[in-house]
Amino acid sequence: MAGNYTAPVQVLIDELGRLPGIGPKSAQRIAFHLLKVPTEDATRLAFAITDAKARVRFCERCFNVSEGALCPICNDDARDTSKVCVVEESRDIVAIEKTGEFRGRYHVLLGAMSPLEGIGPEQLKIRELIARIEPEGIEEIILCTNPNTEGEVTAMYLARLLKPIGLTVTRIASGLPVGGDLEYADELTLGRALEGRRTVD
Amino acid sequence: MAGNYTAPVQVLIDELGRLPGIGPKSAQRIAFHLLKVPTEDATRLAFAITDAKARVRFCERCFNVSEGALCPICNDDARDTSKVCVVEESRDIVAIEKTGEFRGRYHVLLGAMSPLEGIGPEQLKIRELIARIEPEGIEEIILCTNPNTEGEVTAMYLARLLKPIGLTVTRIASGLPVGGDLEYADELTLGRALEGRRTVD
Repeated sequence: MAGNYTAPVQVLIDELGRLPGIGPKSAQRIAFHLLKVPTEDATRLAFAITDAKARVRFCERCFNVSEGALCPICNDDARDTSKVCVVEESRDIVAIEKTGEFRGRYHVLLGAMSPLEGIGPEQLKIRELIARIEPEGIEEIILCTNPNTEGEVTAMYLARLLKPIGLTVTRIASGLPVGGDLEYADELTLGRALEGRRTVD
Repeated sequence: MAGNYTAPVQVLIDELGRLPGIGPKSAQRIAFHLLKVPTEDATRLAFAITDAKARVRFCERCFNVSEGALCPICNDDARDTSKVCVVEESRDIVAIEKTGEFRGRYHVLLGAMSPLEGIGPEQLKIRELIARIEPEGIEEIILCTNPNTEGEVTAMYLARLLKPIGLTVTRIASGLPVGGDLEYADELTLGRALEGRRTVD
């Protein structure tokens, strides 16, 4: 042994360590957890991975996760096709759908621009977004990328790219979270909240 | 869709969420990561899980992870059989082996006592430890459970159980980490370090 795990355990730790947000210590912890649980439980996880990979693909139009060629939202005739909400990931669609505030369609970029991680515009589904504007008659594009560095850079890049085409480009508002406390807000958020102030009517 | 994921994605998120230290947000993040990576990568992880489950079991003597009935340490004739280091998990063996300071054998409890999680002494491999003392001629048991609440409670329980049997029971030292800074040490650690002070020779 001499300070090493038996091969199948080490392979498992290595594979788990490749997952986002899983460091070497967490990978070890999860691996030993899997070795301890009943085989059915571990098999269920392994099957869930291969099953999702086999059955789930990306919507051909908006790159949302989908079991068919088009996702349920793109297939829904009741949606307003003139408005498209641009998000980084499919999970953002779920979050926005829960608000019930948006009845248009989506476009998933599958990431955000990040020079540090070597992700430029060509790695994102931006070309595919441009190609949708004309045939779908899109009039407004709402940039719903995250309000962090990567998301802001991506939104700025898209705004500069899309505005000359002549459509309305909007950005989701930044500000104080509802139910939050002014006192505990960080300066950047508070600054944004002030900057984005609206007249009360 | 309406605020929900397609079934295979939701199943994957649920299964990932069962892993220790993985909250709902991390589970989502990992699930979408797996949907994005090449199928080979996801399959490699799924296979690593089933393969480790199929090939790895616990050593019949010390409950270390092992591919055979006995782990490499228990199979090693050069080890000192009179000393046994009691640890919570197999990963602790790897850590101790790396120090090169211990040439005895191990005993893995497969956990620590935790009233909050409903883990009592009967859920741990304590009966199996007692059963080893006589046939293996164990003279010293070194309690190497973690220096946290669960580990301390377990060590105390074991000390009270083992001392009347007439063998030497020791506890791994707590104190300041080597290379650490007195100023940044928490009070508990500093208190322990003072309590465990040794004469300089």
